[in-house]
Amino acid sequence: MCDQFDVIAFDADDTLWHNEAFYLEGREFFGNLLSNFVDFDQACLSLDEIEKDNVHYYGYGIKSFILSMIETAIKLSNGQIKNDTIQAILVYAKQMVKSDPIHFPGTSETLEILAKDHDLMIITKGDLHEQQGKIGRSGLAHNFRYIEVVSEKIPATYSAILNKYAIPPTKFIMIGNSLRSDILPVLEIGAQAIYIPYEFTWVHENVIDKTMNGYQFHEVENISQVPEVIQNLCGQ
Amino acid sequence: MCDQFDVIAFDADDTLWHNEAFYLEGREFFGNLLSNFVDFDQACLSLDEIEKDNVHYYGYGIKSFILSMIETAIKLSNGQIKNDTIQAILVYAKQMVKSDPIHFPGTSETLEILAKDHDLMIITKGDLHEQQGKIGRSGLAHNFRYIEVVSEKIPATYSAILNKYAIPPTKFIMIGNSLRSDILPVLEIGAQAIYIPYEFTWVHENVIDKTMNGYQFHEVENISQVPEVIQNLCGQ
Repeated sequence: MCDQFDVIAFDADDTLWHNEAFYLEGREFFGNLLSNFVDFDQACLSLDEIEKDNVHYYGYGIKSFILSMIETAIKLSNGQIKNDTIQAILVYAKQMVKSDPIHFPGTSETLEILAKDHDLMIITKGDLHEQQGKIGRSGLAHNFRYIEVVSEKIPATYSAILNKYAIPPTKFIMIGNSLRSDILPVLEIGAQAIYIPYEFTWVHENVIDKTMNGYQFHEVENISQVPEVIQNLCGQ
Repeated sequence: MCDQFDVIAFDADDTLWHNEAFYLEGREFFGNLLSNFVDFDQACLSLDEIEKDNVHYYGYGIKSFILSMIETAIKLSNGQIKNDTIQAILVYAKQMVKSDPIHFPGTSETLEILAKDHDLMIITKGDLHEQQGKIGRSGLAHNFRYIEVVSEKIPATYSAILNKYAIPPTKFIMIGNSLRSDILPVLEIGAQAIYIPYEFTWVHENVIDKTMNGYQFHEVENISQVPEVIQNLCGQ
């Protein structure tokens, strides 16, 4: 037991379970579906563009993704897409919102270890209904004392969460796969962070300390190494 | 100044601003759009049914409503609905998500009065992106210290919010237009509640005290009467 941290917080998508892969599958489904009208890459690229424009209207999540698919299908087919195809997109949507998240190896065990001695929190960005559904279906919810679904991850978001639970930044650490959303804003408010890159493109066996914008943070290859980092920080 | 309440919480949709009317307009838009295929009432009823079935998949909010419109349009037209019509639904969606909430009379003034002496909170159900957008565009956000967007309003939801801010139930009062969502669950956890019926079907000039399931609560005709109730409770 160590009292270095009041709360250990985790991002969810692509930190605890696969998410990007899930949208890539959706994109592939869409590319194949539109094959009578445009080639696969063109379909995917147009979907990406329309999705990006629509974030401003719809926010993040599966419903936004699906609305963008329908819009793109109408556009790329010049208004010739069949109702059957749009119906297939709607069926895909319902499968997507009900699918079970696939954990990264070691996630469940790691959370069990950390939850013994610490209050754990999820801080995840996206659609409230979808994120809560995924957390529920993940089988991991019992490890978390706090669950926060936010619409953006900027320093003010983290400050607001820490303020409301009266957690000093020095007693808070955030773990996630996005330098921009999970790591940098947390460092900026004076808390600590552990970065787990989602696509691990190089090999090193040990935990490494890194620096970004003059801030120090920790980097690990996979979630199973997190307790070791926490233990080291507790010993300091 | 009275220390009877640590926090005064408000529901948002149909308590601070119109919401139901907004969906009724959407329903009317849809009924007219489908007039080549089915009569107006049939279109609206089918949309209601499909929307209800889809809550389980999509949750609440505009994106869910729009996905249900598209599904209903394909179904009622036996797959003959034109792309132009679906495109019109998507255009309507984007207008809907960007429209400004229309306050009830007296809302802004009432919140200013209450915020002088109390911490105010919004507890609203629905889509995170949409609700935060509406709160932002409402021009009322500065009155609220806490904003909570939840996916359901049951006693456990309110208990969790009170726990996290360390608010004793006896120091909490909730104001809203839904007996089922805003009033009863709050009474069940030992807090107080003020009910403002959305469609006011009878006339009385004074605040009245009511009882439901053995619990007592307060009822007012409009939001401008809330400070009077709070003041009376403070004097007790």
